[in-house]
Amino acid sequence: MILEQLSSPSIWRAGLVAICAIAAAMTLAVPINTAHAASAVSHFKLKNGMEVVVIPDHRAPVVTHMVWYRVGAADEKRGVSGIAHFLEHLMFKGTKKIAPGEFSKIVARNGGEDNAFTGQDATSYFQRVAKDRLPLVMEMEADRMVNLRLLESDVDTERKVILEERRSRVENDPSNILSEQMTAALYQSHPYGTPILGWEHEMRTLDRKAATDFYERFYAPNNAILVVAGDVTANEVKKLARETYGKLKPRSERVRDARPKEPPHRAPIRLNLEDPRAGRATVQRSYLAPSYTSAEPGEAEALDLMMKILASGTTSQIYKRLVVEQKKAASAGGWFSGSGLDSGNLGVYAVASEGVEIADVEKALDKVLAEFIEKGATQKDLDRARNSYIASHIYGGDNQVRLARRYGWGLVNGRTIADIEAWPARLEKVTLEDVKRVAKKYFDAAQSVTGVLRPVEKKKADAQKAGHEGRKS
Amino acid sequence: MILEQLSSPSIWRAGLVAICAIAAAMTLAVPINTAHAASAVSHFKLKNGMEVVVIPDHRAPVVTHMVWYRVGAADEKRGVSGIAHFLEHLMFKGTKKIAPGEFSKIVARNGGEDNAFTGQDATSYFQRVAKDRLPLVMEMEADRMVNLRLLESDVDTERKVILEERRSRVENDPSNILSEQMTAALYQSHPYGTPILGWEHEMRTLDRKAATDFYERFYAPNNAILVVAGDVTANEVKKLARETYGKLKPRSERVRDARPKEPPHRAPIRLNLEDPRAGRATVQRSYLAPSYTSAEPGEAEALDLMMKILASGTTSQIYKRLVVEQKKAASAGGWFSGSGLDSGNLGVYAVASEGVEIADVEKALDKVLAEFIEKGATQKDLDRARNSYIASHIYGGDNQVRLARRYGWGLVNGRTIADIEAWPARLEKVTLEDVKRVAKKYFDAAQSVTGVLRPVEKKKADAQKAGHEGRKS
Repeated sequence: MILEQLSSPSIWRAGLVAICAIAAAMTLAVPINTAHAASAVSHFKLKNGMEVVVIPDHRAPVVTHMVWYRVGAADEKRGVSGIAHFLEHLMFKGTKKIAPGEFSKIVARNGGEDNAFTGQDATSYFQRVAKDRLPLVMEMEADRMVNLRLLESDVDTERKVILEERRSRVENDPSNILSEQMTAALYQSHPYGTPILGWEHEMRTLDRKAATDFYERFYAPNNAILVVAGDVTANEVKKLARETYGKLKPRSERVRDARPKEPPHRAPIRLNLEDPRAGRATVQRSYLAPSYTSAEPGEAEALDLMMKILASGTTSQIYKRLVVEQKKAASAGGWFSGSGLDSGNLGVYAVASEGVEIADVEKALDKVLAEFIEKGATQKDLDRARNSYIASHIYGGDNQVRLARRYGWGLVNGRTIADIEAWPARLEKVTLEDVKRVAKKYFDAAQSVTGVLRPVEKKKADAQKAGHEGRKS
Repeated sequence: MILEQLSSPSIWRAGLVAICAIAAAMTLAVPINTAHAASAVSHFKLKNGMEVVVIPDHRAPVVTHMVWYRVGAADEKRGVSGIAHFLEHLMFKGTKKIAPGEFSKIVARNGGEDNAFTGQDATSYFQRVAKDRLPLVMEMEADRMVNLRLLESDVDTERKVILEERRSRVENDPSNILSEQMTAALYQSHPYGTPILGWEHEMRTLDRKAATDFYERFYAPNNAILVVAGDVTANEVKKLARETYGKLKPRSERVRDARPKEPPHRAPIRLNLEDPRAGRATVQRSYLAPSYTSAEPGEAEALDLMMKILASGTTSQIYKRLVVEQKKAASAGGWFSGSGLDSGNLGVYAVASEGVEIADVEKALDKVLAEFIEKGATQKDLDRARNSYIASHIYGGDNQVRLARRYGWGLVNGRTIADIEAWPARLEKVTLEDVKRVAKKYFDAAQSVTGVLRPVEKKKADAQKAGHEGRKS
């Protein structure tokens, strides 16, 4: 799902919000994308190139303020993996006006909350505050867009934080170790293969200079999108934006380089991880697929609906067959991750039931997929999946933060407001034939990576390290 | 083997060699590495930074002339894979003084032969001519080091040539398709994972500008090593070098960037390729290992000897067990590829005998490895392997071209003349314990990629593309 599915290639940061008045200047704002007349959403550009989106939501006197940068981990140079995410942490260190660590405290003292996020394609900073605190957070966010001050000591401390983050998220969780390895195998040339957190040995070398270089290369109003959702009008936001972000000078060419295209894979890849810390044996498989941005028209919508039918929730075909009927799996499902700028992926997984061999589970999973490719879905399945997505789209529209994220994420990945809003209409057009066609096209074994995770006794794990027994999946 | 084993990550070009006198100037030459007093080899630097190695060999009035550049495919930027090799082809297009395509013809008309080579870490150009033609080839090589002239039309034609080279070498040979995919999986972060020939979709985009950028970045006397072997004295070569290469201006900083270090792999990887064109089923496995440049002292020598004992030739343990005794394999062997600048790899392979399942062959291969890790080699094995290498080192020293290549390759990868010449002495120091230790350390399943290639009927192959049967190895 393009809009809500930020979860897969992204890292959210938990953070904490005050008053800090900063002087303001003025810039003109010009409206853009006026075509989507029906939308309640306003979209315009400041003179310095910064885009602004305003989403009115007057149910409560609160606002969600987000700044999205068109840069993510996939824009890192080789050898400095993790710098996008590291910089996102360092953005909380302060400026001339705000002492290190004060940003989130100021937001909190003003009754708000803040957070930040780094993905492969985007980095965003977010605050949710009472309406009257909007000028404050706009001033603060504009300030750190260009005035970040990094002390060597802050950088050193924060490096420990990101290394600890990696340890707790990846090293302590064999399923995440496997996922990281699978992703690296799925993208052999494209930078999506590199973890957003970074490779540990490279994270250790990230320093003030690397962070500053990345900041200066990518952080500028002409590489950013402001999204404000809440109890405000477009005119109010326009005035505030001119007074804050509008005073920042654009920097010359900030546009990111095109990433290398992934070469076609020729053979299925399998990884087998045995870890004493693993729970039940699991099998997971990812297939290279297009994203909303890279797909032929209608394909991504069809993939979304297909995975809903096949693999989402307890009424999905995979769950019904493997868990309910055959009782081979304790859990099973899948996803379509279509929100990337350059590429997406399909995935399925199953957790073995007690006493069931994981190879049997995989065989059963394969059978469901083979039958789906052969027979496709029924009209009833398709209608139900579509209705469910449309309902969740509408439901998501009810949540201010999700709504703001939907627009920010869409725009940062090169989509238009009209595109974003026409998603339900495009879902309506997907036919059973479309679903069958994308199933046949993208469940292509040669484009897949399968990972099997098995628990193993500690002793045996040590013995196997050097040898070869138990290596095969 | 560090010295002769150029074959794995490298592409040799078959080319063809005249008279063309060009004006000459003078530069001073300073001797370097005088420590290796026993060596008959001279090693000095021209004032512009170009290194020169002279290897006297007076048995016949011929000379081997090589220029090695400290640049290879692993120095390419992302997205322009294949540019190092493409430029190597384009170097034969000509200069103001030499018409496109004339270089090799001139060498041939003068009774010589020429060739060129692109590896992950080095690019070299080579001519073998009668002694009195040495001034000619030095003039010509110095000319194209800085005066290459590329016409758009030549670039377009040559692009077709490299694409055809890829088609014939890779696309027409399933075992090379598999090897390419295995290498991509073995190096998930380091550029060694990218094929030297390039990914096809990127090769299609290589243009005059990309070639010129690469040429101007890396081709300069201060990034080159001249190796002359043959019926010449150091003084003769020094004089000629000053008159040809010596007149070229050094370019500011030509040193290549450090490549990213490969992150540790956590789980064994398997690839399974089925192709109607495959012959007998084969299994191949590569393990990440250090190279001579990156290894702890003595480890690369031990790895070399280990693979000699275990996997080289019909007297090796793998061959004896799998082919001679068990008759499970029609052929079997392995290698240590230790000549890379940043990393090496170990590999083993076996081709199934008629009627034998490849899984059985792999199991038998694993058993040989497991036993070797457990028991190690015998002193007799070790002495025989060592004697064989030392004999082949001496034998290689008898071949002018191989000898020149040995020094060029070693120096371009940051080794010294003394290092190169002390190889036999370092082999002498390897003990049975060393061999056992590297076996246990580097036959680490988690650092391996296993590829299985199976023949399959054409029809079945088509049917399997979309589905999942037969996918597992």
